[in-house]
Amino acid sequence: MTDRPFAALILAAGKGTRMKSDLHKVLHPIAGKPMLGHLIAAVDRLGAARKLVVTGAGREQVEAFVAPLGVEVATQEPQLGTAHAVQQGEAALADFDGDVLILYGDVPLVPAETIRRMLDRLQAEDAPVAVVLGFRPDDALAYGRILARGDGTIDDMVEYKDATTEQRAIDLCNSGLMAVRGRELWRLLAQVGNDNAAGEYYLPDIVRIARAEGGRSVVVEAEAWEVAGVNSRAELAAVEAEWQRRRRLAAMADGATLIAPETVWFSHDTMVGRDVVIEPHVVFGPGVTIEDGVTIRGFSHIEGSTIRTGAEIGPYARLRPGADIGEGAKIGNFVEVKNGRFGKGAKANHLSYIGDADVGAKANIGAGTITCNYDGFLKYRTVIGEGAFIGSNSALVAPVTIGDGAIVGAGSTVTRDVEADALAVARGQQESRTGWAARFREAMKIKKAARK
Amino acid sequence: MTDRPFAALILAAGKGTRMKSDLHKVLHPIAGKPMLGHLIAAVDRLGAARKLVVTGAGREQVEAFVAPLGVEVATQEPQLGTAHAVQQGEAALADFDGDVLILYGDVPLVPAETIRRMLDRLQAEDAPVAVVLGFRPDDALAYGRILARGDGTIDDMVEYKDATTEQRAIDLCNSGLMAVRGRELWRLLAQVGNDNAAGEYYLPDIVRIARAEGGRSVVVEAEAWEVAGVNSRAELAAVEAEWQRRRRLAAMADGATLIAPETVWFSHDTMVGRDVVIEPHVVFGPGVTIEDGVTIRGFSHIEGSTIRTGAEIGPYARLRPGADIGEGAKIGNFVEVKNGRFGKGAKANHLSYIGDADVGAKANIGAGTITCNYDGFLKYRTVIGEGAFIGSNSALVAPVTIGDGAIVGAGSTVTRDVEADALAVARGQQESRTGWAARFREAMKIKKAARK
Amino acid sequence: MTDRPFAALILAAGKGTRMKSDLHKVLHPIAGKPMLGHLIAAVDRLGAARKLVVTGAGREQVEAFVAPLGVEVATQEPQLGTAHAVQQGEAALADFDGDVLILYGDVPLVPAETIRRMLDRLQAEDAPVAVVLGFRPDDALAYGRILARGDGTIDDMVEYKDATTEQRAIDLCNSGLMAVRGRELWRLLAQVGNDNAAGEYYLPDIVRIARAEGGRSVVVEAEAWEVAGVNSRAELAAVEAEWQRRRRLAAMADGATLIAPETVWFSHDTMVGRDVVIEPHVVFGPGVTIEDGVTIRGFSHIEGSTIRTGAEIGPYARLRPGADIGEGAKIGNFVEVKNGRFGKGAKANHLSYIGDADVGAKANIGAGTITCNYDGFLKYRTVIGEGAFIGSNSALVAPVTIGDGAIVGAGSTVTRDVEADALAVARGQQESRTGWAARFREAMKIKKAARK
Repeated sequence: MTDRPFAALILAAGKGTRMKSDLHKVLHPIAGKPMLGHLIAAVDRLGAARKLVVTGAGREQVEAFVAPLGVEVATQEPQLGTAHAVQQGEAALADFDGDVLILYGDVPLVPAETIRRMLDRLQAEDAPVAVVLGFRPDDALAYGRILARGDGTIDDMVEYKDATTEQRAIDLCNSGLMAVRGRELWRLLAQVGNDNAAGEYYLPDIVRIARAEGGRSVVVEAEAWEVAGVNSRAELAAVEAEWQRRRRLAAMADGATLIAPETVWFSHDTMVGRDVVIEPHVVFGPGVTIEDGVTIRGFSHIEGSTIRTGAEIGPYARLRPGADIGEGAKIGNFVEVKNGRFGKGAKANHLSYIGDADVGAKANIGAGTITCNYDGFLKYRTVIGEGAFIGSNSALVAPVTIGDGAIVGAGSTVTRDVEADALAVARGQQESRTGWAARFREAMKIKKAARK
Repeated sequence: MTDRPFAALILAAGKGTRMKSDLHKVLHPIAGKPMLGHLIAAVDRLGAARKLVVTGAGREQVEAFVAPLGVEVATQEPQLGTAHAVQQGEAALADFDGDVLILYGDVPLVPAETIRRMLDRLQAEDAPVAVVLGFRPDDALAYGRILARGDGTIDDMVEYKDATTEQRAIDLCNSGLMAVRGRELWRLLAQVGNDNAAGEYYLPDIVRIARAEGGRSVVVEAEAWEVAGVNSRAELAAVEAEWQRRRRLAAMADGATLIAPETVWFSHDTMVGRDVVIEPHVVFGPGVTIEDGVTIRGFSHIEGSTIRTGAEIGPYARLRPGADIGEGAKIGNFVEVKNGRFGKGAKANHLSYIGDADVGAKANIGAGTITCNYDGFLKYRTVIGEGAFIGSNSALVAPVTIGDGAIVGAGSTVTRDVEADALAVARGQQESRTGWAARFREAMKIKKAARK
Repeated sequence: MTDRPFAALILAAGKGTRMKSDLHKVLHPIAGKPMLGHLIAAVDRLGAARKLVVTGAGREQVEAFVAPLGVEVATQEPQLGTAHAVQQGEAALADFDGDVLILYGDVPLVPAETIRRMLDRLQAEDAPVAVVLGFRPDDALAYGRILARGDGTIDDMVEYKDATTEQRAIDLCNSGLMAVRGRELWRLLAQVGNDNAAGEYYLPDIVRIARAEGGRSVVVEAEAWEVAGVNSRAELAAVEAEWQRRRRLAAMADGATLIAPETVWFSHDTMVGRDVVIEPHVVFGPGVTIEDGVTIRGFSHIEGSTIRTGAEIGPYARLRPGADIGEGAKIGNFVEVKNGRFGKGAKANHLSYIGDADVGAKANIGAGTITCNYDGFLKYRTVIGEGAFIGSNSALVAPVTIGDGAIVGAGSTVTRDVEADALAVARGQQESRTGWAARFREAMKIKKAARK
């Protein structure tokens, strides 16, 4: 293998009408990342020398997404078929001396390993002109068929509607994905005509044109799920489901227990350690790392967080970006943590909001504690010292520091720093009125009766 | 077509023993609405002239449910078969000059469109006496078979146990649903006998009796799910699942993203806009309207609410009846709203209970805010002005008004109105005792040691 | 049948490498109970006279689990095959005069009824030496085959790799589970050799050895799910799913409505009454009893609790061990109850933590109420009287008693007992500063602008 450089050309000009969306089709997410992002990540992993997206309507949305990712954008307008779409990349890539990989923005799951096989095959000693990615679906339906020999050499490719009954019986279908030697691609494309029912320029025609010149194309096979396309929200959900199914199996194979795998939703970048236990009904947003031995209880919703060894999370824990939960720490039910660091063994077990805070090791935050981190304009930080004890139903008005080992009395609103090992109490005096409740009840009964 | 009026006669006298329930079988809900209600809604949509339910044990429950829906009730006691059940409608409908549609209270999913096809067929020019709704199940089991010609004319209907091996090989089965010309129905029923193993009067016998007189019956076909029956809680769950599966597909086809469709549960009347995104694990109770561009995050539970364009809900938002969430407003985690109106861009992001309240545009309600709307006898209203800022962990004791642009300090219990642009604070003074916590810890260690 | 005593010998020496876990494979839980515990419970139900686990690496973990369950432990080291594993039980059971039942720690679902059939068959009049539990999987794969006659007599058992093409076509497979007459078992095992590819001593060989002596073995058949094995976390999840599927069907058959059965997760010991309604997305931990007519709304997480007739729980209720919710009582959203008893008709509807508390009949606990039951060292009890009304956002600092019919004002922190029928208020005075908020806003706008 020569390991020639390759350019990834991603077709994304389709209107996506069936999505019924103001969002460009290829920007709809799978596992929390736009479909287009999955493809860019795959070709980046393989070291793509150039990346180009061909788009049409909604170009601005696509451009905004790919701008920080080193991807060029070309426009196809009007849209005259797949060969025509690829041709829109010629201006940018004409001088590129390497292979061109043709992907589709709405075929997001194709694995880097499969692309690698396509590129390797293109660079093999027998020097094919093009590699076509084929697949064998359960139901071949109206896919174009690939007529290939046992060694993978392609004799012809036929659109379903042009296929004979015999050809339709072939189960090897064309996914549309191709890898083509760059120096040949543009030359071949120039010869593609549109003399067909739809009046479109079809990319597979280059195989036939190359063959007429004596050039050989070959097929590489993928599994059907790898080339599943998304044209509707239902197909988006189906591709999401397949992605999740595979991710869950991978997490289990790596040593995590998922009691109810089908109720756990991962993001594209979730990291899950060994002997992690995940209860039913858990959702992971992007940016989560879970170290070994962590328990995530049911109904937890976690994004942008690091959960360290042996910590216990949930049920009903909501960790938002910037949560860093220390070794053996506990975040319990109805607790929200945002941009908050919990030291080793620290606990917030019930009904709390901890935002923009540092919580020291072994600190204990009582039920109903709120860090008041926002005054409507700016955000401020709360610092809670090691071993501090925050009484229940307290409000900590940031910026404020509770010293190591300090205690805040239940029901306090703390507005000034509390020194280490001190007790702070900030609440009203308790007063009682004997018999008042009994008299109130009588009065209200009369009032309610009067209303009827 | 003549568009004759029709009466809907719904059989609901079955004991439903396998449900093991004190609730009448036909009142068990699918998608939040009793099965009987689904049928009544379908025939109402088609403009039924009369509606009659034939019931038996539990008549009071059925009557209470249908009373406000313009449905008459007849009683079948004892229960001597389907023909006998239909006969109980004769007293009420004998004078009715139109068609009679026979439905089953425990076959709730039959679509109005399918009933329309039955009625249309009955009114076609060839003037059949009866239309039978047939279906072809995956496994025909012990269903009665329909012996029909290519044009739908029924030659005979046979109970499974009376069928020959050849007849059992027929896959067209009898759903039980029929539409019959009213002036014929009562006359035919009078001729049905009970000379069979069970000693019951079978409704399908009218087809044979009509034929002997030269009258023709025809079959109209439905898909199997449309005529699925409910005799147990497991079948109730299966019918619910099918309803939900179809509703989710419809929501996606209309332009909503359901990341995990199988974890989202709709009600019979949920309205979902375009470019709505629904995360995994969401439950909708009755009475919900979601406008375009709304995001519903995971673990939200929503009933009786309107959510306006671009609002963001959840995760863990609980919206109860009377919640009206304005354009671009945000309701965050562990927040309950009941009978509360949020203006444009207003926010309640964390751990709050907002009941019987009006929240002005762009108002910001801090974490842990509680509206105290109930004194044990009556409910009172809280009004929060535009752009007001409610500090965290506050209690607003209704009736109370917080003026536009006012600020309530964190940890306050507000019992009197706050004027616009004012600051209100209602909390205790903070006091500290140096070293107290350290001394307490020592004392407690000794106390705990002593207990051992 | 003679009803001879039996000993259960459970093989649990496998390394479980594919689990990738520090926890011994047989201690991984199904429905909240270790796999080994399911087997012990099954044989206990049948009155096992002796119980013995044969283990290897991780013996300490197994021993710690079985110690309180009256189970003996033997060690197999090194591991030379199933016959060798069973032999490790000889020292303990050599004198045992009864039958020996051989189970596998990683085959946890085998029902007591199936084991009963095996033991009954072994004690039948025709006195077989051994009973082998066979099954017919959908795909027989590489399982060992059982060559049996119509009456169940086994002619031979062959490992898949030693089987002829004809033998491989047999679909009756060996589960590995056996029941053997004790006085024969040790004698037969002593004759098993290891002259095979793996050099292992195989338990099924005793069938062939017995037959050579004229002893008869017979097959008893199980369904495939009963003998599903667990070698990986994915298989653990599959067995959990099957257990849950069957448990849900049983709950529905007993008269509970599960709107979305596949989203409800039971524990091994959950008790569910009649006319209980369970909404989507509910998780039950161990130790839960639900009486008749209870409604469990969505997103509830319940463990160690008793919920009495007609109570309504959730959505988002978290009941922890020791929660006892009285008849018709209500626990609402974002409410956690731990070690707390609610009397008849008592209510805690919103955002509360009630721990170590007694709540009297018809008491009403307002939103945001927190019982402060912990001072960092010890836990204390809160007693709330019958008909008491706790105003919202209150903190009750235990130990404390609120008398019958007493009222606590909203926002109070109660540290001293409140007498019956009294009103207690403990909060700061409300103060207002006119125009302060408007001035603050202006100042902050300037500050924010300066930061840019």
